[in-house]
Parts: sequence; C-alpha cells; structure tokens
Amino acid sequence: MPLSHDDVRELDRQDPLAPFRPRFALPPGTIYLDGNSLGAQPSAAVEAVDALMAQWRDSLIQGWNQGWFDAPERLGDRLAPLLGAEPGEVLVTDTITHNLFKLLGYITEGQGITEGQAQARPVILSEGGNFPTDGYIAQGFCRFGGFEHWVVPEGESFDAYLDERVAVVVLSHVHYRTGRLRDMAAITRQVYASGAEVIWDLAHSAGALPVELAACGVRYAVGCTYKYLNGGPGAPAFLYVRRDCQDRAWQPLSGWLGHASPFAFEADYAPAPGITRFRTGTHSPLACAALEASLALWQEVDLALLRRKSQRLIELFRDALGDCLAKHGIADITPPEAQRGSQVGLVAPAHGYAIVQALIARGVIGDYREPGLMRFGFAPLYLSHEDVWQAAQHMRAVLSEGEYLAPRFKQRGAVT
Amino acid sequence: MPLSHDDVRELDRQDPLAPFRPRFALPPGTIYLDGNSLGAQPSAAVEAVDALMAQWRDSLIQGWNQGWFDAPERLGDRLAPLLGAEPGEVLVTDTITHNLFKLLGYITEGQGITEGQAQARPVILSEGGNFPTDGYIAQGFCRFGGFEHWVVPEGESFDAYLDERVAVVVLSHVHYRTGRLRDMAAITRQVYASGAEVIWDLAHSAGALPVELAACGVRYAVGCTYKYLNGGPGAPAFLYVRRDCQDRAWQPLSGWLGHASPFAFEADYAPAPGITRFRTGTHSPLACAALEASLALWQEVDLALLRRKSQRLIELFRDALGDCLAKHGIADITPPEAQRGSQVGLVAPAHGYAIVQALIARGVIGDYREPGLMRFGFAPLYLSHEDVWQAAQHMRAVLSEGEYLAPRFKQRGAVT
Repeated sequence: MPLSHDDVRELDRQDPLAPFRPRFALPPGTIYLDGNSLGAQPSAAVEAVDALMAQWRDSLIQGWNQGWFDAPERLGDRLAPLLGAEPGEVLVTDTITHNLFKLLGYITEGQGITEGQAQARPVILSEGGNFPTDGYIAQGFCRFGGFEHWVVPEGESFDAYLDERVAVVVLSHVHYRTGRLRDMAAITRQVYASGAEVIWDLAHSAGALPVELAACGVRYAVGCTYKYLNGGPGAPAFLYVRRDCQDRAWQPLSGWLGHASPFAFEADYAPAPGITRFRTGTHSPLACAALEASLALWQEVDLALLRRKSQRLIELFRDALGDCLAKHGIADITPPEAQRGSQVGLVAPAHGYAIVQALIARGVIGDYREPGLMRFGFAPLYLSHEDVWQAAQHMRAVLSEGEYLAPRFKQRGAVT
Repeated sequence: MPLSHDDVRELDRQDPLAPFRPRFALPPGTIYLDGNSLGAQPSAAVEAVDALMAQWRDSLIQGWNQGWFDAPERLGDRLAPLLGAEPGEVLVTDTITHNLFKLLGYITEGQGITEGQAQARPVILSEGGNFPTDGYIAQGFCRFGGFEHWVVPEGESFDAYLDERVAVVVLSHVHYRTGRLRDMAAITRQVYASGAEVIWDLAHSAGALPVELAACGVRYAVGCTYKYLNGGPGAPAFLYVRRDCQDRAWQPLSGWLGHASPFAFEADYAPAPGITRFRTGTHSPLACAALEASLALWQEVDLALLRRKSQRLIELFRDALGDCLAKHGIADITPPEAQRGSQVGLVAPAHGYAIVQALIARGVIGDYREPGLMRFGFAPLYLSHEDVWQAAQHMRAVLSEGEYLAPRFKQRGAVT
C-alpha cells in the first residue's frame, strides 16, 4: 500500500541523514531530482569561495604557498575514503575526458605498446550507449595513437570481445541513462583474466553509493565531482591509480605540474613520483575551494546509510507513483536494487520531454535525455522522504490532468 | 637625472590609465610587481563570483542555459580584441599545456602526418630556456605521437633548424625569464617559408602589450589569463585558431563539448564547426566568472596607452635605481624597449633570492627564478608611477644597507 503523507514525515523524523539537509542551500519550492547532473550547493561552499577570493586579494602570488598548490592531492586524499581508496591514490584534476586520455596513454605505454614495439594489443574497448565523452575521447586517443576502437553494443556481454587484442576497457560503473550498476569486482577479474586493463568511470557512483576500488581489485578509475559530490558546476574531476601502478610510464599530457621538480625549470620532463605525475597544467584554486567545502561535509557521511536511504527513496517514489505510469504508457527501466545506482529512469517516447517540463513548472527538477528518457536522481543528503513523495504526487497530477500536453512544454532547449 | 617623489606624483596625475587603479583590490602597504605571475584582483571579480554562486544555488542545473554553457566562446570573443583577433577565433578553455597538446595534434593531423602516411615532417621544434611546460608537453606529444623533439638553444637563430623535417615550432612571444619580445611577424613569415607552422605562446604578452595576431599572419596561439589579464589563480587559458584554419582536422582531446551536437549523445565523435571543436570536457563557470569580470574591464583599455605606460614604468624603475645595481654586481638583462615585454630582469647570482625576500619583507613583491634571476613585472592598470619609484627606493635601501644578508632571507621555498 502506498505511504501516506504522515508516513513519509515519520520516515524523515527517523532519518539519520536528515541533519545534512539544512547544510545545503536549496531554492524554496523546489524538489531537486537532478543531483545526478549538478549537485546542490553546500552552504559551506559559499564561505570557502569567499575566503579564497579574499586570499587572492590579500596574499596574491603567496596564495600558492598557502594551500593552493597542493589542492589536487589534498582533495584527492579527502575523496579516497568515499571510493575505497588510500591516501595518495586519488588526484583531483582536469575533467573526466582529460583524465581518460591520460590513463589510456599511461596504461598503453606501460604495456610497452607505444615504444616502437609491435602493437600486440591494439584495441581500446568501450561500451555502446555509454556517456558519450568516454567514447569520443577513446576515439580521439585511437585516431591519434594508432589504436583501434571497438564498441560492445549496449547490454551485450563482453565475453566475445575480450581477446588478446584488447589493451584497455573503458566502462561506466553506473550507466548514465539506465542507472545500471555493473559488478565491478567480477568484471575487473574478467578483464584481468584476458590480459587487459580496465578504467572505471565513477561519474554516477562516486557519492551515490559506496565504491570499493581496492576491494574490487581496481587499478584505474576516473570520475567527476559535480554530480552527487556537490562540488559545483564544472568542478574538477578526479582520477585514481592504485599505488603499485603509479610509476610505470609517462602520461601523455606531461605538463609542468606533473614534473618531479616543477620549480627547477629543467629542460626535460621527468614525471613526479606517485599520483602527482597525473597533473598537467595550473589548476583553479577557486574551483577547488567549493569542492573542498563539500568534501569536508562528506567526511561525516556513513556510506552504508547513504545507500540504504538512496534505495528507500527510489522505492518510495515508485510505490507512490502506483499504477499511473502503466496507465500512461510509461515504462520504468530502473534496474532491480542490487543492479542500480541512485536514479530512476522512465521512458515516455512521445511525451517524455513535455512531462519533464511540466514537472519543472511545478518545481520538480528532473532531466530528459533523447529518446524519451526521463531521469530522476536521488541524492540522499539533501532529499527528504517527503520531497520524494511529493514529487510523485506532482507526477501523478501532471499525467492524470494531461498538463504536459500544454503547448508551452513542447519547446526543446539544451539542458546539460 | 632621476625623478623626484614630486615628479612621479605629477606623472600619476597626468596618467590616463590612473582611473583603473581603484578598480583593483590591492592589500595596503604592498607594491605588487608580480602581475606577470598572478595578476591582482579586479573588485568586480568578487561580485561576479558571488553572483555565480547564487546562480548555482538558485538555478541549479538551469544555470547551464543561463550563460554557463557558452562561456568559453563568449570570453574568447571578449579576449579577441586584445589579441588582434576576430570574434569566433579565440576559445577560453583548459590550460596552456592542454591547449598546446590539442594544437600540436590538430596541426600535424591537418598536415596529413597522423593518418598512416609517412611522417614527412616528423619534428616539433621548440626553444631552449622556454617556459618548461611548453617543452614538457612537446616532449609528451612527441613520445606519444611518434614525433621527434628538437630544441634550439636559447638565443640561437632558428635558421639552422628550420628544414623540411620540421612540422611545428612552439615559441614564446615574450620570454618568461628574460622578458625578450620576439618579432612575431618576421618569425611567422620565416616559419611559413620553411613549410612549417608556428604556435605562439602569449602567456607574457596578452594584456601586457598590444598583440596583433591577424596583422602578423599568425594561425595558432595559446596563452593564459591569470597573469596580466587578472583572471584569478588558475583561471582558464585560451587558444587562438585563425578562422580559415578551424575546420582542418580533429584535435586529439576530442571530448563531448567539442562535438558538433553534444546533446544528441551520438555514438561517434564529430567535431563542431569553428573554434568550439577545441573544447574538451566541462569547464568551470565559477573560474570563468572571475575572468569575465576582468575582461569587461579590459574592454575599456587603450592598448597603445597601456604599452606606453608599461615602458615608462620600466624606464622609471631603472632610472630610479641609478648606479646601485652596478655597485652591487647586479646585471640588468632587460632587453631594449622594442625587444621587451613588460618586465625587468635583474641577475644577482649569489644573493638574488635573498634580495627578493628582503623586498617582500618591505612590501615589494617580485619573484625569483633560479639561477639568480629577480623578475619584476609592470602591470600598468594597477601600478602607479609612485609605486614603481618607491619600489626602486626600497631596492636601493635593501642593497645599500645589506638587508638581504639577514639569515631569515636565506630560506628557500617554492613560489609559483
């Protein structure tokens, strides 16, 4: 039986994560189910950014000796426990796209492929329907580096593709469209058994659920911090390289801040030991400041509780929608609990875009991806059970009253 | 005869650029001669950053449709007039290091080298003693892409090196150590005559003097915005590609925001037309906001006046130092006016570091680069003639009273 308004309020009273909610600034009248695209703002981020601006004003160049310079490693160390990693294994830098390119170059050089030897393993393998930038940068890497790019059609098994020609597999831990969660441990083992390496993209799992990189035997990963990790729009991404894999090769974007002695101004590049060699150019301390404030908050989060609430919210949302989806021909493609991240996917081929717009008009922010897919992300730190229950009531009203048929909801515009 | 204190105050009263000074926030008691490393803060940047943070809070994901998305092109258009470029030819993105890699890949693919053909032009040429990241990324590019990296020793002519094997030359417009300004038009012609391309690095000339890319026939350039352009620490860099050279090839960091239809989520990369194809991943609207405030101010600047004041300040500084440099064995390596940017270089092999520290203790911020080089940058928008005159008096006192010999000024620390 669907829960009542009183029921969900009681769930909020009992919610051990409820104290996090007031630490986020959310606009009044908004139920934000798009934290899987851009996370909400931790109030502490505003103070951190103010402080950084004051530091630029007052310390000027000396700011680089007052915490700016080490931000990529320091923030990486704060991220590490959220990923099941150790300090010194995570670097906050650049974007996922850049970091994938760096790791593809690093891994394949480490495999002895780019040193003029025969390309015994000439293939980069990625998955169809993956977030496009992962495929696009793999294509750029292959075109430029002389590799082949193979794509496994969405939903197909890797078995038929993982042969002795594959150098590296690029995989999303949680799929951006379907929300499907991969079995990281099993796939990692399978890839290693074939002699290849795998780079996991954690864009939709970091901060959405406990990630256990070390326990799953993972050596390489990338991810972003502006979704569930609430680092702010365009916040710097991260990469993970397991400690025993950090000193194998150059990464191709060999900039001065990845040099062993950046201020010696030596003529020749020499990669820094450890995770620092994956730096490229000068990072933005301003962008890091907002993220650092969010990561401070994340240190207090119990990830098992986060996962439990995430799944409770998803179930609550679907229960509260009841039979209204089926009645309107909307398919729920959300995978079962053990195989999903923290989002719900609903497919309405003809009206998906308009339904999302009608919901936005009611203050319920989800997003839309062609063709027909409505995505709703559940960020447990700032969503209450009542929020999610009310979002479902709005959806029922939009559907039952045909609000989405209004002409003003038909106009398309780009939404990231 | 050296100018008196009254003389320099009179120069300030007559200075047409004086009204810019109160629009910068400078800490009291500081004379900042390090704008060639990190520019001072325009007060408007604080308001712009506050507004961006409020936009993240209130608009959340919709912020991407409210100016965030187009920032790389919009800011590029604002930069263009400072570079002698047209709208649509400059993109604000990533760092110089990334942008050099992109252009090296783009140009050499356009030359037909990376498409499986023989590498008719297998060499990337750069200059010795250049800012290290330019050489380091050229090395990474060459190692990864199968090119050779040649270095012209500092001060030597390019003539002996520019043969039919050279694909691309990477050159600084103003040298970061010596402040030497290259003859952009002549060298560009010379490189083209050899059949190669040249990428100009404008890190120390953009915002320091009028740059005339179109008039000099330049096709490719990169630069940064956190020095003379006052965009803030780690502010995004830029790249320039002349309009008729924009659709020749892929650039290797082929991320989703450089795709022709980033929101179509197509399987295959297809480069966007125009300058947009040089985007990679998701940029930081926060970092862009600070820069945009500075670029708004720059729209009002007359670059001929800027150049005139820059050179006047340099002469004033050297005149006011009088014979004290020679007396203390300090060499002035600043090139003559027509061949310099906006900095003074003084070499004191044994005591350079300590002298800079003693000046900092007096509130005069310059910087130091091994071996022995003291650099003083002259940013005409926020430096008065009186500032520069006083800085020279401080230098005279530091030298004549032997202040730099105090043990506390001997300790080395990294300064960016």
